[in-house]
Amino acid sequence: MLNAAILASGNGSNAQRMFDLTAAGTLSMNIRLVLCNRPGARVLERARQAGLPSLCLDHTTFPDREHFDRAMIAAIREAGADTIVLAGFMRMLTPEFLHAFPGRVINIHPALLPSFPGVHGSADANAYGVKISGCTVHFVDEIMDHGAVIAQAAVPHLDGEDADALQQRIHTMEHRIYPQALQWLAENRLVLEGRHIRLLPGNRPLATPPDNALVWPPLEAGF
Amino acid sequence: MLNAAILASGNGSNAQRMFDLTAAGTLSMNIRLVLCNRPGARVLERARQAGLPSLCLDHTTFPDREHFDRAMIAAIREAGADTIVLAGFMRMLTPEFLHAFPGRVINIHPALLPSFPGVHGSADANAYGVKISGCTVHFVDEIMDHGAVIAQAAVPHLDGEDADALQQRIHTMEHRIYPQALQWLAENRLVLEGRHIRLLPGNRPLATPPDNALVWPPLEAGF
Repeated sequence: MLNAAILASGNGSNAQRMFDLTAAGTLSMNIRLVLCNRPGARVLERARQAGLPSLCLDHTTFPDREHFDRAMIAAIREAGADTIVLAGFMRMLTPEFLHAFPGRVINIHPALLPSFPGVHGSADANAYGVKISGCTVHFVDEIMDHGAVIAQAAVPHLDGEDADALQQRIHTMEHRIYPQALQWLAENRLVLEGRHIRLLPGNRPLATPPDNALVWPPLEAGF
Repeated sequence: MLNAAILASGNGSNAQRMFDLTAAGTLSMNIRLVLCNRPGARVLERARQAGLPSLCLDHTTFPDREHFDRAMIAAIREAGADTIVLAGFMRMLTPEFLHAFPGRVINIHPALLPSFPGVHGSADANAYGVKISGCTVHFVDEIMDHGAVIAQAAVPHLDGEDADALQQRIHTMEHRIYPQALQWLAENRLVLEGRHIRLLPGNRPLATPPDNALVWPPLEAGF
């Protein structure tokens, strides 16, 4: 079982999906803490409704990023978590934070990295005029949206579709590949070889591949 | 019918596919000239075997890029071509060349642009450790691998697969989406709106979507 702290800043739709899949037993993860940097963010209400421990640390009340990250490190350790799941957490993490949880900080980005890093991934993809976009689950390193890639999903960008509609289609795949990637981590099936992550074989049958999308590695049943 | 000059530098597998599909009548394109900058390149032999007019202009015999491109422009006009199909042509084109054929120069790149531009697209994708790569058909502008995107195909990068094996899987999709994109151009179905290309509806039924790949817009029968 993973002992996870979920870090989020806003709506928390990826967090909600993890609440649901851990409650269902599909995702082998104890959610020890839901940590949010924005008072009033919907993810805090979602955590309360799910009966999960949550904490708001308002980053604007800290003198600098280092003090804020140290408070997060302390809260996460106090909660007994060692795996950090970034789910729409809109703050860069300090090297000190990453060193506190080496190889245990995971993020999802709404683009097919290395295309469209940064905070406007799906809007940038829309502006560029790509025909295929997607999302990427990756380990976090000290460069934004740069670490080793665990899983990706590609989706079409329909003619005339705006950035919001594209983002919705991408979100749908985020909600599948992110819990799946965490489950692989929980099962110790992710082997890091340089920047390459090899997935060790498991016992679960594969899910039916989604229509009009490409997911790799393939999703397993339940995800 | 398009009146095309195919520009290539090497093996010419994309060119061969176009020879075959024009001969079969699937691709509405007259190949007026196959133009190569490297003496002895296999694409020249392929053109001869297909009975197509070919010309080798060895770029090393020209004083500079401008003179070389002017010789190409003259040869292309002389052949009666107005659409330039880059098929593994390993030379940057001058602004003068692009202005000679405005909006009529098309390229394929072995990556999901804007990821991995440049001459080592599929090797760079392999080195990065992406789980999904692919290829992109685009109009050429004055920035390398940057113009408006016509079609893309996404393919998985299998665990342990080397750059050559990935490149082969990408090539297979290149051979489908490049002729398809040219056929859309031949049918005047590509509408440029800023950087966005809208595909007008056609009469042909869709092809069965390929296994383990995502192509967008969807391929039509024959491609």
